[in-house]
This record gives sequence, structure tokens and C-alpha cells, in this order.
Amino acid sequence: MKKFAVATSLLFFAALLHAQTAGVIQLPQPDLKSGKPLMQCAAERRSGRKFSNKALPAQMISEILYVADGINRKDGRKTVPTARNKQNQCVYAVTADGIYFYNSKKHALELFLKGDFRKECGMQPFHKKAPLILLFVADLSAIGKTPAEQALYAGNHAGYSSQNVYLYAASKDLSTVVCGMLNRDALKKRLNLKKDQMVIFSQPIGFPAN
Amino acid sequence: MKKFAVATSLLFFAALLHAQTAGVIQLPQPDLKSGKPLMQCAAERRSGRKFSNKALPAQMISEILYVADGINRKDGRKTVPTARNKQNQCVYAVTADGIYFYNSKKHALELFLKGDFRKECGMQPFHKKAPLILLFVADLSAIGKTPAEQALYAGNHAGYSSQNVYLYAASKDLSTVVCGMLNRDALKKRLNLKKDQMVIFSQPIGFPAN
Repeated sequence: MKKFAVATSLLFFAALLHAQTAGVIQLPQPDLKSGKPLMQCAAERRSGRKFSNKALPAQMISEILYVADGINRKDGRKTVPTARNKQNQCVYAVTADGIYFYNSKKHALELFLKGDFRKECGMQPFHKKAPLILLFVADLSAIGKTPAEQALYAGNHAGYSSQNVYLYAASKDLSTVVCGMLNRDALKKRLNLKKDQMVIFSQPIGFPAN
Repeated sequence: MKKFAVATSLLFFAALLHAQTAGVIQLPQPDLKSGKPLMQCAAERRSGRKFSNKALPAQMISEILYVADGINRKDGRKTVPTARNKQNQCVYAVTADGIYFYNSKKHALELFLKGDFRKECGMQPFHKKAPLILLFVADLSAIGKTPAEQALYAGNHAGYSSQNVYLYAASKDLSTVVCGMLNRDALKKRLNLKKDQMVIFSQPIGFPAN
């Protein structure tokens, strides 16, 4: 069953990849009228750590990335704020078949590295099972003078994005949780981040399992 | 007009206060089926810095506090997560007539200090006008070993709450913005915070003005 689900996920991404420029997955447009009423999402917001390995539909992947870091205005501003609109956070999407950079301008996933690196995205075993893991990456040099100030803003920006993903999970009955137990040095190398960039948190998301 | 609006706000709170135990405003129950669909809230999420001084209805104040820090489960867990469920963040509500502590267990506002202290809640002039300002206060000692780690979590938790408030504002066509330009030392004294507590961000919210 597990192998089947992983294979399905791979096929899904393979099919999408085939239809697009090599390595670029153009995500479908998010349905901007959909979802449970906001207050219901808040009421149902919770952390879930048990994931089915069933692949997420492309529409859901699209909407997860949109709420996490999508552009919602013509001037390039986003569904989530950043201090002084620095937009110094980016989001990577990690699946069974690769690490993708979310290009918010194109609403597309760009293949960064082929392979299953999900287990590197957190120390809990469930990272190996979740069909999608978001990595929130901050450029610490963009705002804040001291390491504590920089961290305050970086954590804050990740919080904006993560809360949107939590509410999206509530809206679609998905499971998700934000994780801070990361090997940040290893992830920094894996993503080939710049000196001032840092992986702030990871957030696996998927259908719930019992 | 401004005086009238402030007076209305004062009367509103005075009436509520009168009906309750002195200094405690029992908030009405949030309507947990209400609001725009989540994706529409994400699409309409934006920062707004122009506030009408029209008072917010009690129902909105209730729902703003609920999404910012409300309890949504019988075990005391909230609409917003905290790392390891430390719940080391609390929220103050500042209005024209006082500073209130949000008691999430009772879903009530408890008067902390009578008077108009809104101008102390941020350096921009609009703080004096917004009918409601939230202050997110973290206990830094609860999680993180270094100042940067502590700040990362504190900023993160404030982000969860703030994003919910942003989406609520989108849902109800209100104006809101998170502010980091604060005199944190003065606010710490004003709120008589403990050594390890810190005001992380303020977030004015109200009806928009042109």
C-alpha cells in the first residue's frame, strides 16, 4: 500500500513534469472562492502528526503554496506579510520525488533536487511519510540588527505562512504540524543556501492517518 | 465626529462593564460558522493603516480575540499553536478606555488599567485612532536556550495569531497591520511585565478609513 501510494505520487509528479518545461511544475490556479468559513477553520485548527502517504491532488498543492507564500495582488504583495514588505522568506516544497522551490511569481514549483529527502526535513519519523513538506527559509540579513531581532522577524514570517497552512488543513480536513526540531546545518547544505539564509521551520502536510 | 465615536466606544464598554463583574467584560460567543471562505480571506489579505475611530461591535471583538488566542478544544488547546504547547504567549487588548488582559479560559477581557494608552502601542500616528490594538506578549523563558532561539519562537507565535487576525480583517472588511516599531521597554513597564516577558508586536484593527 505504501509503495503503491509513493508510486502514485511519483507518477503524478512525473506526469505533471512531462507536461511542462523540464523540472517546472505549473500549478493550477487556486480556487479563491473555496474553503470552509474562516471562523470554522479557526475552530477546527489543530496540529496533526499522523499522515497517510496518499498523494495530495495538484489543486490542493496549489492552494497550500498559495496560502503559504502566494502573490495575491498585482503589485506582487502576498497572502502573508513581511516586515517592511522585504519578502525575505521563500518556501521549498519537498515530496517523495524531489525538492522544489516555490516560484510565487509563476505559481510554479521548480525542481531543485531529484530524490526523496523528506527524512532530512525533521527529526520525527512522520516526516518520511507526509506527501508534502514545506520548508520556510528566511534571509536573516534583510531585517533586524542583532541575531535576536533577525530571528524574531524570521520566526514571525514563518508563523504567518504556517498559520495559513494550518487553516487550510482545517478547511480541507488535512493533517499538519510545524516542526522546529531540524538539523538546520544539514538542510542549509542540502539546499545550498546562502550565508545569511536559514531554514526556520518545516511543516509536513497530508491526508490524516489513524 | 471623533469625540462622538470615542464617547460611543466608552459608553459601549461602560455598559458592558456595568453588566458584568467590575472590570471584567464577558465577550459574546464567537459565531463559529461565520466568515468568508478561507481562500477568499487569503486572497483579500492585506495590511491596512487607515482606521476609522468607529467602535468595533462586541461580536467582532469577541471573534478577533478568539482567532488571536482563543481556546478551541476541551483540553485547552487554542486556535493558534505554540511550540510544545507551552502557551507562553498572552494577548492584551487596548482600547480608548483601557488596557485589558484577554482571559482565554473565560473568553473575557479583564481590565488591567483604565485610560487611553493607545498611543503607547506603536510609533505611527494611526495607533491613536484604531479602536482596538492587540499586544502580543511572550514569556521568552518558556522555550529556546539562546536569545535568538527565544526570539524565533516568540516571533513565530505572534505570527500565528496575527495571521488569523489579518484573515479575520479580510473576512469582515476591516483594516489591520502588524507593527514592530515599539517602545518595548516602556510597554513592559506599562504592563508591569515579568523579567522574561516581552511585547513582541502590536496589531491595531478597526474599520477602514479613506
